[in-house]
Amino acid sequence: MTQDSPTLSLAEIAAHLGARLQGDGERRVRGLATLRDAGPEQVSFLANRAYLKDLPGTRAAAVLLHPSHAGECPCDCLTLDNPYLGYAELSRLFDPLAGRETVGVHPSAVVGEGVTLGEGVAIGPQAVVEAGVVLGDHVVIGPGCVVGADTWIGAGTRLHANVTVYHGVVVGERGILHSGCVIGADGFGFAHDGGGWHKIAQLGGVVLGDDVEVGSCSSIDRGALGDTVIGNDVKIDSQVQIAHNVQVGDHSALAGCVGIAGSTRVGRHCMLGGGVGLSGHLTICDGVQVTGMSLVTNSIHQPGVYSSGTGAMDNAQWRRNAVRFKQLDEIARRLSRLEKAGRGG
Amino acid sequence: MTQDSPTLSLAEIAAHLGARLQGDGERRVRGLATLRDAGPEQVSFLANRAYLKDLPGTRAAAVLLHPSHAGECPCDCLTLDNPYLGYAELSRLFDPLAGRETVGVHPSAVVGEGVTLGEGVAIGPQAVVEAGVVLGDHVVIGPGCVVGADTWIGAGTRLHANVTVYHGVVVGERGILHSGCVIGADGFGFAHDGGGWHKIAQLGGVVLGDDVEVGSCSSIDRGALGDTVIGNDVKIDSQVQIAHNVQVGDHSALAGCVGIAGSTRVGRHCMLGGGVGLSGHLTICDGVQVTGMSLVTNSIHQPGVYSSGTGAMDNAQWRRNAVRFKQLDEIARRLSRLEKAGRGG
Amino acid sequence: MTQDSPTLSLAEIAAHLGARLQGDGERRVRGLATLRDAGPEQVSFLANRAYLKDLPGTRAAAVLLHPSHAGECPCDCLTLDNPYLGYAELSRLFDPLAGRETVGVHPSAVVGEGVTLGEGVAIGPQAVVEAGVVLGDHVVIGPGCVVGADTWIGAGTRLHANVTVYHGVVVGERGILHSGCVIGADGFGFAHDGGGWHKIAQLGGVVLGDDVEVGSCSSIDRGALGDTVIGNDVKIDSQVQIAHNVQVGDHSALAGCVGIAGSTRVGRHCMLGGGVGLSGHLTICDGVQVTGMSLVTNSIHQPGVYSSGTGAMDNAQWRRNAVRFKQLDEIARRLSRLEKAGRGG
Repeated sequence: MTQDSPTLSLAEIAAHLGARLQGDGERRVRGLATLRDAGPEQVSFLANRAYLKDLPGTRAAAVLLHPSHAGECPCDCLTLDNPYLGYAELSRLFDPLAGRETVGVHPSAVVGEGVTLGEGVAIGPQAVVEAGVVLGDHVVIGPGCVVGADTWIGAGTRLHANVTVYHGVVVGERGILHSGCVIGADGFGFAHDGGGWHKIAQLGGVVLGDDVEVGSCSSIDRGALGDTVIGNDVKIDSQVQIAHNVQVGDHSALAGCVGIAGSTRVGRHCMLGGGVGLSGHLTICDGVQVTGMSLVTNSIHQPGVYSSGTGAMDNAQWRRNAVRFKQLDEIARRLSRLEKAGRGG
Repeated sequence: MTQDSPTLSLAEIAAHLGARLQGDGERRVRGLATLRDAGPEQVSFLANRAYLKDLPGTRAAAVLLHPSHAGECPCDCLTLDNPYLGYAELSRLFDPLAGRETVGVHPSAVVGEGVTLGEGVAIGPQAVVEAGVVLGDHVVIGPGCVVGADTWIGAGTRLHANVTVYHGVVVGERGILHSGCVIGADGFGFAHDGGGWHKIAQLGGVVLGDDVEVGSCSSIDRGALGDTVIGNDVKIDSQVQIAHNVQVGDHSALAGCVGIAGSTRVGRHCMLGGGVGLSGHLTICDGVQVTGMSLVTNSIHQPGVYSSGTGAMDNAQWRRNAVRFKQLDEIARRLSRLEKAGRGG
Repeated sequence: MTQDSPTLSLAEIAAHLGARLQGDGERRVRGLATLRDAGPEQVSFLANRAYLKDLPGTRAAAVLLHPSHAGECPCDCLTLDNPYLGYAELSRLFDPLAGRETVGVHPSAVVGEGVTLGEGVAIGPQAVVEAGVVLGDHVVIGPGCVVGADTWIGAGTRLHANVTVYHGVVVGERGILHSGCVIGADGFGFAHDGGGWHKIAQLGGVVLGDDVEVGSCSSIDRGALGDTVIGNDVKIDSQVQIAHNVQVGDHSALAGCVGIAGSTRVGRHCMLGGGVGLSGHLTICDGVQVTGMSLVTNSIHQPGVYSSGTGAMDNAQWRRNAVRFKQLDEIARRLSRLEKAGRGG
């Protein structure tokens, strides 16, 4: 890709980030790279001590870093208390996509009756926006997206290509929905009559707060009666499943392949590692972190870090230990008997 | 969403459900809600003792419940032996989507040669139906769907938006396929020549029985030679993967994120919890339940409930235990030696 | 599906596979089936001793097998040192889809400015190919696909229906991308300011080598600064997530539901079983196999087979053992005390 980023002066960057510049404010850069890869027209950053070894040899025009490392910097530097946050701001400055969207409705798109379009809305080729949809200002609907009837999408939200949002969903402002994600499909609800299954119509909706990002191919199902509710500033990675009537609190982050079963409530500022599973009807309090691929089957009432599973090991060793796991209760009982015998003797 | 549900009288509801009404048959309601949320124009239900505490305070017009709870109901009631099943029927009565589909082929849809359309078929905007496809009566093909050549879809089946069905697939009657699901992609088959991989063309198909539901973003792969076969009344949640030549028996239910490897046969009336994994070439008999995130690597020949893994715990505690898991076989051997020494002494 | 495979003579097949024919070279067959299912117009194969029992009773016209089994074959045979590889070649000969693609751009497709099309390119109905895309010879873009601006797709690659490739992605030659997969969505990168999340623009791309296959509904995210890189001849199953800046070496195979966290490097000739999870920033050397649903949290520097977890067992037994797992460190300490007491006594 031709990365036709704008060129910016170091003074402009410093002003934008609120950073202190030590060096030539007139110097212009046209991109961002790691300390190791950066060339003389690029700016770099140091946000993790693991990369401190790459600082002396960098060819970058300037490096964004904490004031305490300014002395070791071989080139111009921009100092900031939180250089990782500075990197985030800087990355968005150099995003070649930013503001490149063509405004307007592509002639191949199909827009239903009674649709309300804010200012500067973009609807891409082959998209379908059904009747009664409301799109806020500067909403972008990518190619091939389908937005169901009566759905409401807040200002500044972007749907990348081939996103599906069902009817009656609410998406907040400044959201980002990645390709292949599906918001508002039916929750998994059936009643059993002793022989087979009877579908429970999923009459609730989905409400996504502001500043929510949903990764590619993730699913957030609609509620059975009430809504499935995702708070503000919740970040959801790819391949995640969120079942009906789940609630996720503000500022929580869910890594790839997470699955949350029905009606579970996740607090604010929680972080779920990749592949974590939460059973249904649980309450997870604020500030909980769960490490990758852990299964949580009980509510958690104390903030902290939680885990399950066993670490990976050589398969031959693992086979022996896994067999012993099946005997573990018996092993514990045998140990207790020995202890008693010892005390008794 | 404007939930423009029809209004129904309690007498009509009682007749539809086969329930016994205690109260005013003329009273009209326009929706369904939980005991806690229902207002005076809504009907509610009690199907789980955990919600009995909400019964006395409900503002619902009427409550659907078991005859044994009729005495505690503060309003009109509809009694039924299986109130959860009654709730399922009722939810479908109030489904605002039911029967709202526009019949006919949208002008933007692309329909190939030799396609057979039953009565009352609906094909949405931007959909593609390839040559030789047969769609039964009242089939609904949502916006953006692609149905491959020579595929057969039974009467009353609905594909929500952006579903993909490959060529030569058979879908039974009254099915529901949710957005983003893919039926009939190639199974994962390759032969190794010592250096690299050679693709095995996947010449089989997929056959879905009647009354099958498939959740959003789920994959059911086509067979290598024979077909992948999903029985009648099988319910499949979101983010599920079913590999080539798998067979799933009638009335089984697979929760979110389940993965079933190639050629495994799952019996009838099985229930797989969220994130369960089944290895390939297994046989799982009828009536097996597997709890969430368990891995099954051997066939199961007895009905019952099966599990694997460890429960989640505090991370510091878990680290210590996980290290011990790696020593478990050695621990068991040391215990045996102590026992022998004890007996010997 | 009418499987209108070509008919082929046994002599033609033998020549194509480099196999030795014992039988009637003029005999014509029109398909491929298992030993058990094959009829007199079909050819079969024996590649796994488990199916040797089906050989004597087969009704196939001819069987592809190892020379050592020719004596037991009740019909004509084609002998080859690697009959499974021969089966792979044969399956592709009988693929009814092969070469059936209509060349050209469907009138409903939307092709942007400055797109370069090789010879024999096919772009299906409702597809979108954005500005600056380069498609090599005989590339097939299926119905409903979206290919983002400035993406490059090598000769002979096929995108099945409803695939999404973001902007600035490179896909090698002879690739196969299955429906619903998403290549190049943003990696999951955010900086925290103590209160909430700030998006890190994902400025890198994705590079897929030659002969890569990606299964349905899989996600391969774009890099944060550098690219996410998938080597040549890498085979990726359905429902897989590959995070930003991951590298996967040539000839590796990833089964369904695998998840690989950011910046991890997987070597060449690795095989990850279904549902395996790799933490971020790891290095996995060449020739590593990880068994199904294992979690790998540390780098692996020795080729071999690795595992984690516990096998599935009866739920009642499992509950007892899982409780003991939480006491495992304490159990080990108690055992050590007993051992010391024994030695001391």
